[in-house]
Amino acid sequence: MAEHPRSDQTSGGQNPDRDDDDYGPGAELLARIDTAIDNDDRSALNAALEPMHAADIADLIERLAPARRRQFLAMYSDEIDGEILSEIDESIRDEVLELLPRSVVAEAVREMDSDDVVDLVEDMDEGDRAQILSALDASDAAAVRQSLAYPEYSAGRLMQSEVVTAPEHWTVAEAIEFIRSEDWLPEQFYHIVLVDPRRHPTGYVALGRLLASRRDATLRELTEDSFRTVSAFAEEGDVAYVFNQYHLISAPVVDRDDRLVGVITIDDAMAVLDEEHEEDILRLAGVGDESSISDSVMQTVRQRVPWLATNIVTALAAASVIAFFEDAIAQLVALAVLMPIVASMGGNAATQTLTVAVRGLATRDLSRANALRVVRREVIVGLANGVLFGIVMAAITWAWFRDPGLAAVIGSAMIINLLVAALAGILVPLGLNKLGADPALASGTFVTMMTDVVGFMAFLGLASAVLL
Amino acid sequence: MAEHPRSDQTSGGQNPDRDDDDYGPGAELLARIDTAIDNDDRSALNAALEPMHAADIADLIERLAPARRRQFLAMYSDEIDGEILSEIDESIRDEVLELLPRSVVAEAVREMDSDDVVDLVEDMDEGDRAQILSALDASDAAAVRQSLAYPEYSAGRLMQSEVVTAPEHWTVAEAIEFIRSEDWLPEQFYHIVLVDPRRHPTGYVALGRLLASRRDATLRELTEDSFRTVSAFAEEGDVAYVFNQYHLISAPVVDRDDRLVGVITIDDAMAVLDEEHEEDILRLAGVGDESSISDSVMQTVRQRVPWLATNIVTALAAASVIAFFEDAIAQLVALAVLMPIVASMGGNAATQTLTVAVRGLATRDLSRANALRVVRREVIVGLANGVLFGIVMAAITWAWFRDPGLAAVIGSAMIINLLVAALAGILVPLGLNKLGADPALASGTFVTMMTDVVGFMAFLGLASAVLL
Repeated sequence: MAEHPRSDQTSGGQNPDRDDDDYGPGAELLARIDTAIDNDDRSALNAALEPMHAADIADLIERLAPARRRQFLAMYSDEIDGEILSEIDESIRDEVLELLPRSVVAEAVREMDSDDVVDLVEDMDEGDRAQILSALDASDAAAVRQSLAYPEYSAGRLMQSEVVTAPEHWTVAEAIEFIRSEDWLPEQFYHIVLVDPRRHPTGYVALGRLLASRRDATLRELTEDSFRTVSAFAEEGDVAYVFNQYHLISAPVVDRDDRLVGVITIDDAMAVLDEEHEEDILRLAGVGDESSISDSVMQTVRQRVPWLATNIVTALAAASVIAFFEDAIAQLVALAVLMPIVASMGGNAATQTLTVAVRGLATRDLSRANALRVVRREVIVGLANGVLFGIVMAAITWAWFRDPGLAAVIGSAMIINLLVAALAGILVPLGLNKLGADPALASGTFVTMMTDVVGFMAFLGLASAVLL
Repeated sequence: MAEHPRSDQTSGGQNPDRDDDDYGPGAELLARIDTAIDNDDRSALNAALEPMHAADIADLIERLAPARRRQFLAMYSDEIDGEILSEIDESIRDEVLELLPRSVVAEAVREMDSDDVVDLVEDMDEGDRAQILSALDASDAAAVRQSLAYPEYSAGRLMQSEVVTAPEHWTVAEAIEFIRSEDWLPEQFYHIVLVDPRRHPTGYVALGRLLASRRDATLRELTEDSFRTVSAFAEEGDVAYVFNQYHLISAPVVDRDDRLVGVITIDDAMAVLDEEHEEDILRLAGVGDESSISDSVMQTVRQRVPWLATNIVTALAAASVIAFFEDAIAQLVALAVLMPIVASMGGNAATQTLTVAVRGLATRDLSRANALRVVRREVIVGLANGVLFGIVMAAITWAWFRDPGLAAVIGSAMIINLLVAALAGILVPLGLNKLGADPALASGTFVTMMTDVVGFMAFLGLASAVLL
């Protein structure tokens, strides 16, 4: 049988040993784009970008160096549509908007779903916002304003107001007839939301089920078990959790009176999940959580300096502990050689515990129900690792310095520090969470200060007491 | 107007100041469950669990201490269905399976979609696997075996083989008629995949679009722009990326001959995205990437010891650098006081760069196209931070020890170490990625060893050369 030619649309790595760059534009296409920019050749640029997905064009724009980005936008601004604009990362969006002609922005905004317009204008001042919204129909602008009335990072900001609804007494035939005759429908929808006369959602029907059912069945009979509404005031992180936990595809959003105000679809929830992870990982590392690969040098310095400044303070605290034991070190220099090992093991053990705790809190796997059990586990693990590596370091120290007293001291200090590391690693994030703060703020910086201070203090203090 | 009573199904935080535990079962329900287990009261337990979602029941089982879990399963095993079983975390799944009667497992497996069965049996040995699959119809078992023939963590393992297909020349009316008359349909589906006579997918039609279109329109006219197929050999992480990047809801999966073999839906892609993040964050922290909050003490120790053992080796390397300068420290104990500051700042700066790089590679924001620019940025940022904090530390050192030479030495060492931190933080993950390894394996342990060694060497070496 003849080999069928592969479709152009096929993506996703036909070849098991492909590498990551097979996604998005290939090297050859990027080279063509580069040449087109160099030559200020608009039509070559348009031709190269024509087959590209809006998300890939947005990524391309983000990855350009700032000067080159301006050059690119000067050539391509007329082609920027709503889809590209809504894909562009916040970090460079203002810059891009300023470079675009007003007419292009107005046209782009008119193409967008209301949730994308909200995302675009929510950080603008009222003047800029009003100007953008003036491009919309009055009803669309009102929908955007309604969303903006909900708190930042809430379900109300995430939802789109375009929803397909029907009363639950309708039959399948009536619902299909209604959809077919409706001249306005959302770009994508997967469920019909059933509402009572006061617009309270009472269930939803998956389109697949609608299609598969008898024409005289009522929508009420077809409502899915998975139905659950989301409050417009719910935090977006909680919304992402609910989608992931219950495998939802879309969820109706309700106001305080339980009235339908919009719908959230899983692709938006997935994007939030992605952002929440990004925040966790960046906060744990002590990097501003807005940081992105397209930031300039100045932005990057500004994000990182506060954390490094915090660290210099905590490092000075640890240094003062050492300074307190200067005499001991002057008498036995081996202490200076060995003390960073105790501190470093504590820092690593604390980071392990901390990360597991932050992750557990993020996924709700760690909750009031099992917190005590997890604390107990971490303490026992800290003790076990302390004894194990205490013995290892005592043996190494004995072999290196032939000093049994020093060996005993480092072994004991290791046990103390790994125990403190376990406690700090689990209790600090649990405490922050209890206080309503982000547990990921318990970044390495804070927790490792504790293990540094305790490590130096235990080791040098024991050595002073026992050896000198 | 009277307040409408809130529906029982409503979830997602009605109250803006609710806390995390509002999701899943409340404290009151958990107390009832506890009491039921204590009293060995099966009917009370069933009544308490009856309103709970399968995902929440699975979480509950995961969070129980091992002994209590056995007790729970002894009481509840008859009620464990396919949905609960497919939600249970891998880390305790074997344990749960062993405690369940075979008939319960067989019944549960029959209810599952093929992708969930694959997930359940893929890590079993052939004997156990054959036993589970014997519960299925021959055709379902064959579908599972077909999936298992694809590599681990591939799209082929993730897909479900149940797909609704139609030829592209069909009209809307024919498609609807077909769906209505079909007695077997997947639990959930959002698109009809269009296939040619050799089962090559040529497009797909969203059900919303199908419903909204004229009855005589052909499916070919309705195919979505977003259509793209995924190779059954594609890595699941790449699949998650494609879904997130292109806002897909479902994607047909094809074999090497571009023939349709299944479909992946976004909820599975979202779960993979979540797991990939988990791996990144746990690997960066030097924790086994299989670690979970429900692990026992022994499992936890086993996961963490290798990383701590690696760290002891790297810490010993740093200690040997210090030992090399013992004489200098004996002459000037202030060196021992200050040296951890230089090392710690380097470690923190390296972690910042490393995390941004690992995250950028995971999201494909960092790629060949902009790697050079990002490396350049990180080096400039490292230099800028080095100069800034070098001056700060020189000033502090001068104020503390009144020794201008020592101040100059620590300032210079800081510049050197933050520069090295930037280089190590960006080049190590890029290098690992180039070699096809996971860049998150460049965990703190490895990169901070470099900054420790370089920090001690630069500071103590400069001090020996200049001051003594």
